[in-house]
Amino acid sequence: MRAVCFDGTLKVCDREKPLRQKGEVLIRIAAAGICNTDHEITKGYLPGFRGILGHEFLGFVEEADDRELVGKRVTAEINIACGNCVFCRKGLGRHCSERKVLGIRDRDGAMAEYVAVPCANVVEIPPSIPDESAIFIEPLAAALEILDQTVIDKETSVLLVGDGKLALLIAQVMNTTGCDLMVLGKHPEKLTLLDDAGIKTSLLPTFKKRYFDVVIEAAGNPSALDLGLACVRPRGIFILKSTYSNGFLWNPSSVVVDEITIIGSRCGNFQKAMAFLEQYRPALGRMISGQFCLEDAVEAFEYSARPDALKVLLRIG
Amino acid sequence: MRAVCFDGTLKVCDREKPLRQKGEVLIRIAAAGICNTDHEITKGYLPGFRGILGHEFLGFVEEADDRELVGKRVTAEINIACGNCVFCRKGLGRHCSERKVLGIRDRDGAMAEYVAVPCANVVEIPPSIPDESAIFIEPLAAALEILDQTVIDKETSVLLVGDGKLALLIAQVMNTTGCDLMVLGKHPEKLTLLDDAGIKTSLLPTFKKRYFDVVIEAAGNPSALDLGLACVRPRGIFILKSTYSNGFLWNPSSVVVDEITIIGSRCGNFQKAMAFLEQYRPALGRMISGQFCLEDAVEAFEYSARPDALKVLLRIG
Repeated sequence: MRAVCFDGTLKVCDREKPLRQKGEVLIRIAAAGICNTDHEITKGYLPGFRGILGHEFLGFVEEADDRELVGKRVTAEINIACGNCVFCRKGLGRHCSERKVLGIRDRDGAMAEYVAVPCANVVEIPPSIPDESAIFIEPLAAALEILDQTVIDKETSVLLVGDGKLALLIAQVMNTTGCDLMVLGKHPEKLTLLDDAGIKTSLLPTFKKRYFDVVIEAAGNPSALDLGLACVRPRGIFILKSTYSNGFLWNPSSVVVDEITIIGSRCGNFQKAMAFLEQYRPALGRMISGQFCLEDAVEAFEYSARPDALKVLLRIG
Repeated sequence: MRAVCFDGTLKVCDREKPLRQKGEVLIRIAAAGICNTDHEITKGYLPGFRGILGHEFLGFVEEADDRELVGKRVTAEINIACGNCVFCRKGLGRHCSERKVLGIRDRDGAMAEYVAVPCANVVEIPPSIPDESAIFIEPLAAALEILDQTVIDKETSVLLVGDGKLALLIAQVMNTTGCDLMVLGKHPEKLTLLDDAGIKTSLLPTFKKRYFDVVIEAAGNPSALDLGLACVRPRGIFILKSTYSNGFLWNPSSVVVDEITIIGSRCGNFQKAMAFLEQYRPALGRMISGQFCLEDAVEAFEYSARPDALKVLLRIG
């Protein structure tokens, strides 16, 4: 089968079609999204990863132990836990030390014609969710994770720093809480996607420092981290969504002096993401900047890296 | 009066005795402790501070609006809030943007024969608390602050990184919670002070990474921060107590991937510190490494900076 591989270089190549093991489901991929993590991998953020990229996808079940599943439109939770370790036994499978992660850690991903995943990871997508929204289930789950980590309601002032793909999803999630939300970005054409929802946006940090109850950093650069931290009120919450290829110079003294709580936030629950899509029906299709066929994946990655690009899809099946 | 001043250089000099304003209390200082923050100030951590140092002290009331107070043995809460700003109105006076802090920010401290402080800041020390414990009320309150910020009980595994003055107080506080406590330090002669309490200590980080529910960083150096973070379990808590003179190279990606919560922790409640001293009667006098008279303050600071030194007192009154 054809697949988008990273072996130090990004390329489209031939790979063996995965052999489904017992307990696994073989999925014929329809589409896969390019995520910032994919770019980080190709830039060396996860130096150990070699293999097929891709962890945001949807497809159709081709083979499964349960015949009922065959033909269903599905996606899959990307963390594959061992099930036995101390974290798994506490229900923290997404933090299993031995976990494999589709297209990120020790396990081939979904930018290919087929992927095999454990049955427990497979999530059926309800018919009411269109493809162009379903492709966002994984990052939307990551956005919703924030609401599992801190209380945000209509009494809460929230500053979101960033206007990339994840940031725009977070903005739409935050907006459903009724919080007093401000989104700070650098790209007017991206921020404008939030206008219809009545979300306040700004290109300049003209607001007061030490003001916001919650600041969410989803811009992916160290200067956004410093700016965001300066805007949290004392005893406030700083949600950190970005991972970084390299270290940077930092002095955490203000975190101590202002007694700020920093919460690292990663993946979330797919069922909650689907429930969100069914309840609010956000027009996520507007966040798709381009679609490419699998053979043009290298070009798709280049396009996706453009400052004005949002989600770029690979159409596969 | 004689006072320990910092004007870019540490020195003992003559200063005007403070004129008590209405609403203030004039305290004749008996003793003041040298804290790491005092050293940080003299190293340039708070470049703006010029004046009399000292924020850990005890003394006797010389003048007050309330005649009943005169002669009482007291200390004082070091943050002087404006009382009017948005933080003060929320009960966060210790985070008031306009706050002055005794010996730290825009207000003369207590390494002098006298200090004047607002009456609201003055705390009477019960007779049951001896001087050698009372001098620790301010840092002990900072240690106890951790218990106001996160739940620690006998189900909690706690790693404390550090064996300085604050760390040893934190260890003694943590030990009263019944938690499974390990203290990692570099100085056998300091760690041995925890032996009587049955606290486990170690000079080498031989324990498992990603294991502890709570890690407390009170060592004051960036390598301790990195080591401590590596030891927190996923979704665990990292308490940050140290402030740093300079920035350092850092990559917070593990905070995101492991969804760690970092809680900055600073000052605490004096009443809780006194209640702790009355309930547990810890032998804090053993943590006093040296006592000097006010005139020998420069020598006292030098002594206090030695790696083997713990609390150093200036005896004044």
